[in-house]
Amino acid sequence: MADPQVAWRPVTRVAGGRRALDQDAVAVERALEIRLGGRSLSVTLRTPGHDEELAVGFLAGEGLIARAADVVETQALPAACDDQPDAIEITLTPAVRVDWSRLERRFAATSACGLCGRAHLESLRAGIGRVGVASPIPAAKLAALSGRLREVQAGFGATGGLHAAAWCDETLEPQIVREDVGRHNAVDKVAGWLLGARRYPAEAGLLWVSGRAGAEIVLKAARARIPALAAVGAPSSLAIALAETAGMALIGFLREGRMNLYTGAERVVGE
Amino acid sequence: MADPQVAWRPVTRVAGGRRALDQDAVAVERALEIRLGGRSLSVTLRTPGHDEELAVGFLAGEGLIARAADVVETQALPAACDDQPDAIEITLTPAVRVDWSRLERRFAATSACGLCGRAHLESLRAGIGRVGVASPIPAAKLAALSGRLREVQAGFGATGGLHAAAWCDETLEPQIVREDVGRHNAVDKVAGWLLGARRYPAEAGLLWVSGRAGAEIVLKAARARIPALAAVGAPSSLAIALAETAGMALIGFLREGRMNLYTGAERVVGE
Repeated sequence: MADPQVAWRPVTRVAGGRRALDQDAVAVERALEIRLGGRSLSVTLRTPGHDEELAVGFLAGEGLIARAADVVETQALPAACDDQPDAIEITLTPAVRVDWSRLERRFAATSACGLCGRAHLESLRAGIGRVGVASPIPAAKLAALSGRLREVQAGFGATGGLHAAAWCDETLEPQIVREDVGRHNAVDKVAGWLLGARRYPAEAGLLWVSGRAGAEIVLKAARARIPALAAVGAPSSLAIALAETAGMALIGFLREGRMNLYTGAERVVGE
Repeated sequence: MADPQVAWRPVTRVAGGRRALDQDAVAVERALEIRLGGRSLSVTLRTPGHDEELAVGFLAGEGLIARAADVVETQALPAACDDQPDAIEITLTPAVRVDWSRLERRFAATSACGLCGRAHLESLRAGIGRVGVASPIPAAKLAALSGRLREVQAGFGATGGLHAAAWCDETLEPQIVREDVGRHNAVDKVAGWLLGARRYPAEAGLLWVSGRAGAEIVLKAARARIPALAAVGAPSSLAIALAETAGMALIGFLREGRMNLYTGAERVVGE
């Protein structure tokens, strides 16, 4: 059986001025709905596998249940397209009192992922437009970018505990760098700067992030109409799919002069 | 003026069989409420600084506003204790239609942080009990843990894109390792395994995470009554404060045979 946690995607590897087409193993990211007594409680973006543990562990972590005996049954509801679940339905003992008015405020949404209530890839895709025609990205300048940006990341240097995001203009010059303990917050701060600078939607340039590229980062870049996203870390399967839909160039593992091009490889030019 | 992004905390550095008391710079993590037209929209855990950018960037990233002209005014509401804001109040132009019934489901909560509606440290602290008396943690075995766990992290090895969490028993033997694109999901899967194994609440052992230790990870460990948390990455200021409240040992930067002890240093014994 194939590993449900890993998907293979085409990649162009760029290193030492050379390009090679290859296949890359990427982490699978898919939405899972957690349902409680027939009602939707939360939608989380997760890697498939151990989904029932994830669902009951989520309830425990949020203080809804305190022991295994609180759970009568968990049921995985398979997706239409394959055998991975799209939802977990949980039944608790009647003794567990569930205050839905409080829950709906607390859990019905995950602002961190920006995907609440839109569990399926197709509806995600429908929600993002294609970014416009964008200028070519010089490979040599791109290769140097993570090193340059690490140097200006004061808070990371001091603490090792801050994520960063930056927006670079069409010549790949960094215009703004922001740091935060939350990856999505750093991206939101960059978007807020673009708004204040009357450059939102951007329609140009590149968003750089110091960590991984998950689906929510691609969605935020697509909303800002930034036509390229470069991450120091790995992309997820859903990030690649959404970047493709948006017509966005997606670059991963941008560090030490190397990079992987997952979408829009033709836009990265030169050696 | 002090850097609002960085806080100094006491630390015991352990390396090469030696201990040294020191001060460590940690990333500040604090709750910020985003308010729209007088109503609470979302609470996010963020690093202070550029908070108004964060708030309007969040609205843009979620598709609520599309350009700077949609925003009439942003106002920072300072916290009672210092001059950092606790909330940002945003006023949009009347032309922007806000569908609150949809928003309340989507944004009123952040399940990723588990802190929705509990913006203040004191109320967070009130929500967690103290973990029980726990056995000493052998330093030498702890120092070897991240290396051992990386070896069994199949998905990370393949993709570089998966976080991991593990629960180790009181002898520091890993009993379960789970991987996910989401850090909190990996921890929820471990909690779900503990529930299924009838070992929840754990009241013993150690939770290990492959990344950073933020407040939400400490809260999940405290709910599971795991008396120690070890992270390969950095802790945040809020994580340290909450670990202290819970009576939990908090270990950061556990890698390459070294570690930083932020709370409960006396529980890590031997050289």
